[in-house]
Amino acid sequence: MIDCGEGTQMQLSKYKIKRSKINHIFISHLHGDHYFGLIGLLTSMSLLNRTQDLHLHAPPELEQLIRLQLNFAATHLSYTLHFHPLENEGLIVDEKKIMVRCFKVQHRIACWGFFFQEKRNLRKVNAERAKIYEIPAAFYEKLQQGFDYANKKGTIVPNEEVTIPGARSKSYAYCADTIYDENICEKIKGVDLLYHETTYLKDLHERAAARYHSTTIQAAAIAQGAEAKRLLIGHFSSKYENLDEFLSETSGIFENTELAIQGSCYII
Amino acid sequence: MIDCGEGTQMQLSKYKIKRSKINHIFISHLHGDHYFGLIGLLTSMSLLNRTQDLHLHAPPELEQLIRLQLNFAATHLSYTLHFHPLENEGLIVDEKKIMVRCFKVQHRIACWGFFFQEKRNLRKVNAERAKIYEIPAAFYEKLQQGFDYANKKGTIVPNEEVTIPGARSKSYAYCADTIYDENICEKIKGVDLLYHETTYLKDLHERAAARYHSTTIQAAAIAQGAEAKRLLIGHFSSKYENLDEFLSETSGIFENTELAIQGSCYII
Repeated sequence: MIDCGEGTQMQLSKYKIKRSKINHIFISHLHGDHYFGLIGLLTSMSLLNRTQDLHLHAPPELEQLIRLQLNFAATHLSYTLHFHPLENEGLIVDEKKIMVRCFKVQHRIACWGFFFQEKRNLRKVNAERAKIYEIPAAFYEKLQQGFDYANKKGTIVPNEEVTIPGARSKSYAYCADTIYDENICEKIKGVDLLYHETTYLKDLHERAAARYHSTTIQAAAIAQGAEAKRLLIGHFSSKYENLDEFLSETSGIFENTELAIQGSCYII
Repeated sequence: MIDCGEGTQMQLSKYKIKRSKINHIFISHLHGDHYFGLIGLLTSMSLLNRTQDLHLHAPPELEQLIRLQLNFAATHLSYTLHFHPLENEGLIVDEKKIMVRCFKVQHRIACWGFFFQEKRNLRKVNAERAKIYEIPAAFYEKLQQGFDYANKKGTIVPNEEVTIPGARSKSYAYCADTIYDENICEKIKGVDLLYHETTYLKDLHERAAARYHSTTIQAAAIAQGAEAKRLLIGHFSSKYENLDEFLSETSGIFENTELAIQGSCYII
């Protein structure tokens, strides 16, 4: 889960997302719309008798707040909460199937973006062909990793002869709240899906800069610079009633753009 | 406003209650379901450019939490927030039309009840009769306060001759989360409307005691002991799907009982 505004629990229920599927929570920064729902979620998980560990990656100040709130309520969580303070850019999660890196973005207060990268998918063994070459099943794991096979006679079977490529590993970048900052591009190069905020339409670029937010065409420029495949825009100022112009302004520069709409699912 | 769980802002919007009408907020205790929505409300009021002062009456620990959250977000409220720590039983608000007292209840952590008392309503002057007695308008305020009138000749006009009683002043008691505690009765004697929690039906009195909550018949006993005019019950455990038994068990002992239903308005 990335960020957790007030009412997140109600949204989880509404969209039938099980709390038990959440093992990592990433908090970009300590503005209320990004974390006021967290403490309620953490305590509800305990009321539901969660036992699996939960990992929280967040600005260091948040730990004090959570500990205070648990202490004041004399609450002991039913599970282990691992607090991982965001302090330096780089790798913060390295699991079997996925890696997560954090990177700094520029906002009114310390703020972090997150880059999610699937690990390189293994090649798939064509078992029929592998049998023709009499490759033992014990070697299949090596084949998946791309190794060639050498039989007892010393003959080399090139990996490509008996495997096909695995699915391409995909990536997602979440740039949180940020002023226009070209430095982001290098950190998320080639990302499959980029979420970038567009708080304002392009005419309000001065207000955007003053408030450390971005406009439509700035998000599009970041997507271009990052050579992103697709762009998802959101965090629209509540003063706009209609979002059509957000889409038209942004896609005018970066065609493959979508609006982030509450409750929607975006397949990467 | 009494207590402020997560999502209170959404409920205010849903039931069309203006945030600007709220000048005092009373927080009974620091369990999340009673205050996790507060920081969001406080900051939203600022985003809406509130200028009128806001008074917050709450357990002392809450001030540190609020200050930390505002500091972390580098937020300066647009209005003055007066924090009044709850430390001793007694008068905490004394305004033109209303007084509020707090009193201790017994819960797993420090917890407070609140007693709201309208001030004595002024008598109403019968202007026609006052004219017959040639009472100058300048004396009407004294008449409202119950004084007799003495004319130049020294003749006394009894107050009752020219006024009628004002509306009876009314009272409301909110007992927050509490174990069964007969000491409450004296503190809210004769209250017009008593809110008392009934987390459990009567058969679970042991669980209620262990968790510092109350049952139906315990709330009814408090209402009787306090000589309350009406009883409002709520804070039902989420394990119950049907609330009919809460009403029947409680009203079996204290007839004038109502269920506290979300979004309902109870006129005192």
